[in-house]
Amino acid sequence: MSNQLDINEIRLWDSLHKLAEIGATPEGGVRRLAYTPDDRAGRSYFVQQCENLGMSIEKDGIGNIFATLLPENKAHQNLSIMVGSHLDSQANGGKFDGTYGVMCGLEIARNLVQHKIPLEVCFELAVWANEEGARFAPPMMGSGAFVGQFEISQLLKTKDLDGISVQDALDEDDWLKSRPFRSDRKIAAYLESHIEQGPILEKENKTIGVVTGAQAVRWLNVQIDGFQAHAGPTPMDYRNDAFLAACEVALAAEKIALNHPPNGRATIGHAIVDDPSRNVIPGAVELWVDIRYPEEKNLEIMQQELKRQCLEIESSRGVKIRIESIWSMKATHFNPNLISLLRKQTNRLNLESMDMISGAGHDALHMALKYPTAMLFIPCKNGISHNPAEDIIKYDAAQGCQVLYDTLRPLLIDLNSIKGIT
Amino acid sequence: MSNQLDINEIRLWDSLHKLAEIGATPEGGVRRLAYTPDDRAGRSYFVQQCENLGMSIEKDGIGNIFATLLPENKAHQNLSIMVGSHLDSQANGGKFDGTYGVMCGLEIARNLVQHKIPLEVCFELAVWANEEGARFAPPMMGSGAFVGQFEISQLLKTKDLDGISVQDALDEDDWLKSRPFRSDRKIAAYLESHIEQGPILEKENKTIGVVTGAQAVRWLNVQIDGFQAHAGPTPMDYRNDAFLAACEVALAAEKIALNHPPNGRATIGHAIVDDPSRNVIPGAVELWVDIRYPEEKNLEIMQQELKRQCLEIESSRGVKIRIESIWSMKATHFNPNLISLLRKQTNRLNLESMDMISGAGHDALHMALKYPTAMLFIPCKNGISHNPAEDIIKYDAAQGCQVLYDTLRPLLIDLNSIKGIT
Repeated sequence: MSNQLDINEIRLWDSLHKLAEIGATPEGGVRRLAYTPDDRAGRSYFVQQCENLGMSIEKDGIGNIFATLLPENKAHQNLSIMVGSHLDSQANGGKFDGTYGVMCGLEIARNLVQHKIPLEVCFELAVWANEEGARFAPPMMGSGAFVGQFEISQLLKTKDLDGISVQDALDEDDWLKSRPFRSDRKIAAYLESHIEQGPILEKENKTIGVVTGAQAVRWLNVQIDGFQAHAGPTPMDYRNDAFLAACEVALAAEKIALNHPPNGRATIGHAIVDDPSRNVIPGAVELWVDIRYPEEKNLEIMQQELKRQCLEIESSRGVKIRIESIWSMKATHFNPNLISLLRKQTNRLNLESMDMISGAGHDALHMALKYPTAMLFIPCKNGISHNPAEDIIKYDAAQGCQVLYDTLRPLLIDLNSIKGIT
Repeated sequence: MSNQLDINEIRLWDSLHKLAEIGATPEGGVRRLAYTPDDRAGRSYFVQQCENLGMSIEKDGIGNIFATLLPENKAHQNLSIMVGSHLDSQANGGKFDGTYGVMCGLEIARNLVQHKIPLEVCFELAVWANEEGARFAPPMMGSGAFVGQFEISQLLKTKDLDGISVQDALDEDDWLKSRPFRSDRKIAAYLESHIEQGPILEKENKTIGVVTGAQAVRWLNVQIDGFQAHAGPTPMDYRNDAFLAACEVALAAEKIALNHPPNGRATIGHAIVDDPSRNVIPGAVELWVDIRYPEEKNLEIMQQELKRQCLEIESSRGVKIRIESIWSMKATHFNPNLISLLRKQTNRLNLESMDMISGAGHDALHMALKYPTAMLFIPCKNGISHNPAEDIIKYDAAQGCQVLYDTLRPLLIDLNSIKGIT
């Protein structure tokens, strides 16, 4: 019942700031777009640190890197407990997004080596390629390829805005393109620690968020067609104003999300007014709508409710509204046993914690499609992420890493613990 | 008390359709952008018809054309009753906008000549240059220059999107650029007939709108600053969504206009979302707002009410809202005596009519700054204008022209009638 740390708080903090120097921007953030020299420099630093620990390094055809501490017992060298995250960043990103998860893994590896923890199975540390998708779409590319969600041959053809393909980008890195190979080692569990990228933990004064799953997401285009007319001669009650109808749709979407607390979300990211002019009543508007809920069923209810309200707006404003599905992602439910282990270790450390749903995408969502998976979050200041102002507190960083270590350690040293995970 | 027409309904209709062939578009509209060869062709046709009637032709330095029927009595050759409108169109405009007013004037000139009406003063017919402003800003350029509202030397430097200046465009037309000159003839009254460009007359089953003035107009930019954040991890009640705040501002503006019936107007012509993305809560939005009312005082009340509501939205949504004035136009009040004459002639012809306020800009608004001025409107189908589908009914066109003729005739043949106008 103590909060004494095994992990080295200062060493972890130093590693995070070592990474922050690579691709550092004047505003205090980082720019390590996937497969660029700066991303490569970050990954090289990682590989070097792992080699210093005697870890074996593997990589695959899309540029994911796997660093492994092998157990003495050769019988289980083909089974691993994996930790991972990413080192690439947004174009104008923050220091901790992704990096925190990888550096937690590195700190755990250092502990395992330093204290000669007798491993029964492999400790494997993954750096997923192109998680952000800021240079090459889709995001979470490396983990998606790893679990077979994406076709690698297709991904390699994807081009950035300069016309450079993923294949070109991989070829620029002699180390990455040479002998891509990862053994067919079985993954018994995957755990990822990440900054929350939202404001909840900070506002609720919690140190740890035990992530039980991730929201189902739907992207909708809502097309509103009214009647374009001159702003001067057209009386208010003769109008079929597509923009005002769009405003009602947007506020209705917000209300629907508010009626599904605390995890319902609705966001209108963009409104495109057709042929806009200062003195013309808009004839057509397109809204980009993003709705989220932890359960598919309720998300469907939210969308149906939006549809119903659009019908009302159609009739009251004399406009036509069409809802088109652009993209969707099913809800993720993490492994209940891993979730219990995270909760147990958090409690043992007397940390303030809460269960959470991830609103953002993470490599763990891909891993959860094939492997027992869970995540933990630590707070980030003011909920700011994807921004040079992204920041965390040293204490939280260390506690998150300790929870991860405490959760993993039993699995690494005792085959029976692994059997407890389904 | 009869509705027998002096003016020739078929001749007027034919003239309108002759003009519609010049710059005709496949969709059934016209494209006669100011000073282009098609605009020139329309104006040449007009000049030729006037010369056939023995009218004298003058033009000024910005390309306005004045065709005059001189009275026998030389004493009053320096005083005119003027009718006018424009022949240029929007890029994808309709057949009747502007053309209707000019062809009414031509039909009246034809009548005056045909029936040898003994004029006491000049009948002058103006074709104003570049009323639409679709190629060169500002709109109503020719009439604005004529009344001294704009500096001609400045206007001549104005360029279109191809970098061609008004001076260049005038120089392309040998006829226009040669000897620009209009005599200093005094204008006793100015009258303009126009299609309504709105739906009111049609919906109210009226043939004639007696236009008593024009709305005061203000253009405002409303800048809303919230906080950009990730659509996934940010709960609904932690947001400062600039777009949803903008929606509330837009709907508040609409409500304010509805609370000032029947002539209050508020239009949001455009919404510009800063740095838009499908899964990002908008951090900043700019709205283009156009508010109108027939009286300056009430328009100020409307703007103050908008400001008050923006303060409420600022506080409820945690955003900053800034209202910036971009442009404004004061209310126009037409000459009460000319308005009475129009009403009287309309009643005499047993026409269904109503008083109206012009919501759109017209050359008559500029003329009203210096001369006794009034306007009449005829209905346009479904209120559609600035559109190839713009259409009118032959009966309405003829009745409008007759009212105009009946209103002018006493002024043209009796100096005492002119004295009745202040």
